[in-house]
Amino acid sequence: MSGDNKSGTSPAIFCPAPGPRGDVVVLGHGSGGRLTADLVSTTFLPALSNPILDRLADGAEFDIGASRAVFTTDSFVVNPLRFPGGDIGSLAVNGTINDLAVMGGRPLGLSAAFILEEGLPIDELRAIVHSMRDAASRAGIQIVAADTKVVERGKADGLFITTSGIGVLPEGLRLGPENVRAGDAVLASGPIGDHGIAVMSAREGLQFETTLLSDCAPLNALVATMLESGSAIRCMRDPTRGGVATILNELAKGAGAEIMIDEAAVPVRAAVRAACELLGLDPLYVACEGRLLAIVADADADRVLDAMRTHAIGSGSCRIGTVTALGRSRVLLRTAFGTTRLLEVLAGAQLPRIC
Amino acid sequence: MSGDNKSGTSPAIFCPAPGPRGDVVVLGHGSGGRLTADLVSTTFLPALSNPILDRLADGAEFDIGASRAVFTTDSFVVNPLRFPGGDIGSLAVNGTINDLAVMGGRPLGLSAAFILEEGLPIDELRAIVHSMRDAASRAGIQIVAADTKVVERGKADGLFITTSGIGVLPEGLRLGPENVRAGDAVLASGPIGDHGIAVMSAREGLQFETTLLSDCAPLNALVATMLESGSAIRCMRDPTRGGVATILNELAKGAGAEIMIDEAAVPVRAAVRAACELLGLDPLYVACEGRLLAIVADADADRVLDAMRTHAIGSGSCRIGTVTALGRSRVLLRTAFGTTRLLEVLAGAQLPRIC
Repeated sequence: MSGDNKSGTSPAIFCPAPGPRGDVVVLGHGSGGRLTADLVSTTFLPALSNPILDRLADGAEFDIGASRAVFTTDSFVVNPLRFPGGDIGSLAVNGTINDLAVMGGRPLGLSAAFILEEGLPIDELRAIVHSMRDAASRAGIQIVAADTKVVERGKADGLFITTSGIGVLPEGLRLGPENVRAGDAVLASGPIGDHGIAVMSAREGLQFETTLLSDCAPLNALVATMLESGSAIRCMRDPTRGGVATILNELAKGAGAEIMIDEAAVPVRAAVRAACELLGLDPLYVACEGRLLAIVADADADRVLDAMRTHAIGSGSCRIGTVTALGRSRVLLRTAFGTTRLLEVLAGAQLPRIC
Repeated sequence: MSGDNKSGTSPAIFCPAPGPRGDVVVLGHGSGGRLTADLVSTTFLPALSNPILDRLADGAEFDIGASRAVFTTDSFVVNPLRFPGGDIGSLAVNGTINDLAVMGGRPLGLSAAFILEEGLPIDELRAIVHSMRDAASRAGIQIVAADTKVVERGKADGLFITTSGIGVLPEGLRLGPENVRAGDAVLASGPIGDHGIAVMSAREGLQFETTLLSDCAPLNALVATMLESGSAIRCMRDPTRGGVATILNELAKGAGAEIMIDEAAVPVRAAVRAACELLGLDPLYVACEGRLLAIVADADADRVLDAMRTHAIGSGSCRIGTVTALGRSRVLLRTAFGTTRLLEVLAGAQLPRIC
């Protein structure tokens, strides 16, 4: 893997990291990294704390009658609205499906709330709504509730979409980092960073030798196959904002575990590697929108990988690391040079507005 | 009721009504009135149509195991962020609770997704989050899932909040305009228009002799009491965007019914009446955020009203009209002058960004 990080700390390229946390919102608060976690822990949780929210999972789990439901929400503010391989519409649908899927939930329905800027061409809106329909249809899901608001010209940026989703967990399934054991395998479902680089290339007008497409895709069918394989899957996450490095740290923290990642085993496309070198980015911090990370029992790793590879979007699945010990929460990277360093969460705002 | 509408058509005061529907989004598309309905029918429904969404109710109904769930979403873009009697936080919590409540749903949990503008003071965000906590606590609900995104300065307007909610319906309960019968009574839970005028007064810096507070409040306890009264409640709606007139038209259309409203029976506070006269508005088109309209069997009307009046927020409940016939969808207003005229849905954008 290229784009290695000379300083040993996570990069903050496109936005100056604020000094001591200021008293106003900065772009980094939306990065999914350390500043987002700060905002959550100092502003949201003290007021809203409850046992479900405090888990800080991709969504909430609670009982509805005899069923176990999962519930999640995300706003999408990607810039530009269209990028190679997707647009804000497909992203908003897949993003919420994926949050349900990695919790183990079978999605039942989505809602979509639109904030439109006055002056947005109706044809552009219509194209995005069609893209949502196609994404939902591909995943076998329906959008069952919606809302539309309009704000004056200059008070939004074209449009923002917030999707929420409800799913049900298969009976008896309880995924979560608390299930992680020493020796477990860490799997990735394919090459990382495609989405973030595809959005950046569209935003900055970058040209690559080959067209790089976002990995934006629904993970629910892949997850269903993984669960049906009968393997001991401990937990899953989709490495969106903050990238693989940040999500691994969240898993390590949730599990109270040390995770060792083998840099050479992490799949990165040549175009993503090249773009990261050009832009001074580390692919481990670049968002995916159609990939998942899974921690599974070591003995079941090959069986899960075989199942994952039967899906087009899981064909590049591979093992990228191991849970080396319990008791200390950290992520270590064995670099391509044979050294080992701490892999930290994203600081600052590496790639603002990629979702 | 004052603020009567000389032309016999609904007013469009603050925004020039667009001519033939243009090819860009205009503020009126967010009004909740005719232009919103146009956008839904020409842009959203053709792509996203499914039996649940097509009902165009306040939310979706579907089965989760043996339970009947309701699910709803709304974005909140109110300007200014604070107004007498509430702020965007309490509004976002109560608005979604109320959409669940008027469907008959007992709210189980809410999600909240924040879109923050770079530069928003953290103290302001914190105050709004505290307001959400207080509103949720008052209603006995928890916020169980959340998300935060940040956009650059000038790309949003302080903050927008999207809330979604899940609830469960009591067994056997099926509310909906299809239940409406000729002779049914039309009830309102209190004075109308307080919210819209409170927001407008804050936005425009208007001063009234008495402080007018928004009616922003949770309706779930009031609805629970109404359902427990054992009366034949056909359907309920909260008259938010587009006001009582627009929501009554939606009910009439859903029921295939003619509704006659007695203008003199519609409760309007003196301050709202005065503000509407000053601003050239009709209170029947001004939004409430803590009121409901209910259609109930005529024989049960007094019993329901007695139950409603036991609640502080229902103390002003009264009968405002009657379902006069089935077969023709329209709303008629018997004016204070003794004449009868058609009461139409809101055209244009009377009060932009009041929720």
